[in-house]
Amino acid sequence: MSKSGKFAKLPGFRDFPPEDLALRNHVFAAWRRVSRRYGFVEYDGPPLEELDLYTAKSGDEIVDQLYQFSDKGDRRVALRPEMTPSLARILAIRSRSMPKPIRWFSIPQLFRYERQQRGRLREHFQWNVDLVGEGGVASDAEVLAVALEGLRELGLGSKDVRARVSHRALLASILQATGVSSEQMPAVFGVIDRIEREPPERIAERLRSGDEAGLDEATTKKILGLFQEPGLDSVEEAFAEHESVVTCVATMRDYLRILDELGFSPFVEFDLTIVRGLAYYTGIVFEIFDRTGEFRAICGGGRYDHLLEHVGGDPLPAVGFGMGDVVLSELLKERSLSPVYAPEVDYFIVSIGEAQEGLARRVASAQRGLGRSVIYGLGNQSVKKQFSAAAAAGAASVIVLGPDEVEQGRAVVRDMKSGEERQVALEDLLDASRVQVGAGIDRSTSERVGGV
Amino acid sequence: MSKSGKFAKLPGFRDFPPEDLALRNHVFAAWRRVSRRYGFVEYDGPPLEELDLYTAKSGDEIVDQLYQFSDKGDRRVALRPEMTPSLARILAIRSRSMPKPIRWFSIPQLFRYERQQRGRLREHFQWNVDLVGEGGVASDAEVLAVALEGLRELGLGSKDVRARVSHRALLASILQATGVSSEQMPAVFGVIDRIEREPPERIAERLRSGDEAGLDEATTKKILGLFQEPGLDSVEEAFAEHESVVTCVATMRDYLRILDELGFSPFVEFDLTIVRGLAYYTGIVFEIFDRTGEFRAICGGGRYDHLLEHVGGDPLPAVGFGMGDVVLSELLKERSLSPVYAPEVDYFIVSIGEAQEGLARRVASAQRGLGRSVIYGLGNQSVKKQFSAAAAAGAASVIVLGPDEVEQGRAVVRDMKSGEERQVALEDLLDASRVQVGAGIDRSTSERVGGV
Repeated sequence: MSKSGKFAKLPGFRDFPPEDLALRNHVFAAWRRVSRRYGFVEYDGPPLEELDLYTAKSGDEIVDQLYQFSDKGDRRVALRPEMTPSLARILAIRSRSMPKPIRWFSIPQLFRYERQQRGRLREHFQWNVDLVGEGGVASDAEVLAVALEGLRELGLGSKDVRARVSHRALLASILQATGVSSEQMPAVFGVIDRIEREPPERIAERLRSGDEAGLDEATTKKILGLFQEPGLDSVEEAFAEHESVVTCVATMRDYLRILDELGFSPFVEFDLTIVRGLAYYTGIVFEIFDRTGEFRAICGGGRYDHLLEHVGGDPLPAVGFGMGDVVLSELLKERSLSPVYAPEVDYFIVSIGEAQEGLARRVASAQRGLGRSVIYGLGNQSVKKQFSAAAAAGAASVIVLGPDEVEQGRAVVRDMKSGEERQVALEDLLDASRVQVGAGIDRSTSERVGGV
Repeated sequence: MSKSGKFAKLPGFRDFPPEDLALRNHVFAAWRRVSRRYGFVEYDGPPLEELDLYTAKSGDEIVDQLYQFSDKGDRRVALRPEMTPSLARILAIRSRSMPKPIRWFSIPQLFRYERQQRGRLREHFQWNVDLVGEGGVASDAEVLAVALEGLRELGLGSKDVRARVSHRALLASILQATGVSSEQMPAVFGVIDRIEREPPERIAERLRSGDEAGLDEATTKKILGLFQEPGLDSVEEAFAEHESVVTCVATMRDYLRILDELGFSPFVEFDLTIVRGLAYYTGIVFEIFDRTGEFRAICGGGRYDHLLEHVGGDPLPAVGFGMGDVVLSELLKERSLSPVYAPEVDYFIVSIGEAQEGLARRVASAQRGLGRSVIYGLGNQSVKKQFSAAAAAGAASVIVLGPDEVEQGRAVVRDMKSGEERQVALEDLLDASRVQVGAGIDRSTSERVGGV
């Protein structure tokens, strides 16, 4: 219960009154335009799925973070916390008969029961872009290009955001060459993931600690040294005799070259500390941040070549990303890149006297039929009140129907910005082709249907 | 678990692969265009709300039909079964400072745990349109006009669909005049709701039965007689001495006249059997059906003047409707009014030889920068395979980059429909203004942002 009314929204959930929905629709529209330009088609899945679909992928620990319950048919179900499991389920059989690569995108609302923190929500919308059935590094580059183009479409250039890219197999090869065993590997990945957020002493401690990575002093030093000079050149030089490192460096170079050809070099930085939390990534991974470092990651993604198989699909290579709407919207607002919301309609029709109301409705209907947005007073209101309603509705023009003008077959149209008025013949306002409604589909309607 | 994969979607839920999402987006786009033309603005609320928000409105019986559970914070919550309670909650305090009437619409996904029946789903999307803060009959007409225009926008004319309209206060006055007590009233409303679906003998039985309406023989006969000649004229004549009936008939006539002025007469029929199941309707109600009677109702709505107050808001008159996507989509498919889905991109770029791939990506990037949708081969593929990929992607044109032409600064563009080929200068395909990416926001991007 809130102070403000009898009921409140649940903590961590958002209402979208029109001024907020306008920003959401602005972001979604940009995402859809960019997806289309890159040849991706939209799909969706249900917001509620079998719980097992998520535990199969992420293990039982995920249950604690989910909105999960038993439905009335005793099925264990969960609100979707991410889209990829649904994508894998939908593609499981269908992918066999589809030309590859499959380029699909979606904008699902996702749910997690996060502990309440400032700015942490329990739902968000996420642009999911996945390219399935193609394992080459060109696909990795194509997918990162989509993400960056999505941001550029919203007005964020390379001065605003950067993509930090790495390669999990490269990091694994380097660590192996440094003396990390495969048992120690996951824990070391976990510590490296923290390098940006914690001081070097704490990182060293974690690398040594038996509870975490459990490395000896020499290996710990070598690893910390790695991140002093983390460029591809120095990595290649230092591990020139390790074939797997050299191969991964070559892949990384191809990837960066392709991103350059696509025009995205200024956005992209190689950064060995990017490992991505999720264990299912198998190759190149990336995260996108604003350059000031003020905000959490805007986007994360990478290659996950075994996931589809894991949730029951065919073994297909895949690469994709998720970009949430929350951090991005904050950033757009901060940079004054969010649209200014103001209600607006093309016409407000003012009737002077009840006798004009029928005519007002006929004009409204005719103008709406021409695709214009039109409002007229619904109650018996004074002319003054009708003019304030017109202003409140953001009317570009007001059509005034006064008894004298109407008798002469005219109306006055006032431009609300300039105040300029002009007389217009009523017959021009009443589009004759539209009066004949109900005669089935008229030409303008069928054209609109066909033209979408 | 389904036969087809390791996991299945939950019963009553839908996947939307691209061919189905195309129809959904087609319907949503029409709804949004029409809402805008009538001056309505879009909002949204959370898909999960406190359970009490729904029981406050509909009583405890509704709990059986809900997806409801306790969240990890021990809140009793439910997936939204309808939008109006969220609307009322959002408006509760906010409405005080808003100009009236408030014209809001939304397209939420709604959830009910229905018993499994053929064609019955457990989720659907619903176009919700509400006009709040204006009690006059012109608002009732305006809202029905929006619903009918939404259908017309999708190609359904008055030969395809009809709106059956009634007035709950009119029916109540008539029944009162006929001898029905206020205690019997709800049960009689319930029986009248079944008139279309059950034979007259069964209806008479229900009216008499002590378990249902419990009317005497004379009243039962009078009521059945009412629906023999159900026009407004005959109602007015039969109850000329009952003031409340006469008042309601006059309101109904105003309503029909206004709908005529708006051009929707051919769609509208007075029908006293329309009562709407939900108890919160207070005035004029309507349902829209296809004329063949093959499908369930497409849309239902009416006036609900006490609801906002009931869930904690200010007492504000309101009228609105909900139009679901399921029946409507079935009808559109049956009438061949659903869009034909085919993947399509503007260009597929074919590289003859690996040496052209970098150029292919530069051309792709330039053309995408101009707003075109472009795909190119991501693997090393034969020219033949690239051409089949272009066909599968629905490419309108193929840009062929062959070594000889490229050396001469040219490419071949083939129209995939006509087979016609023409030579194009590479510099025309590579838009120079776009090569300079990363220099902040370029002009074309900022224009796009502003123009949305």
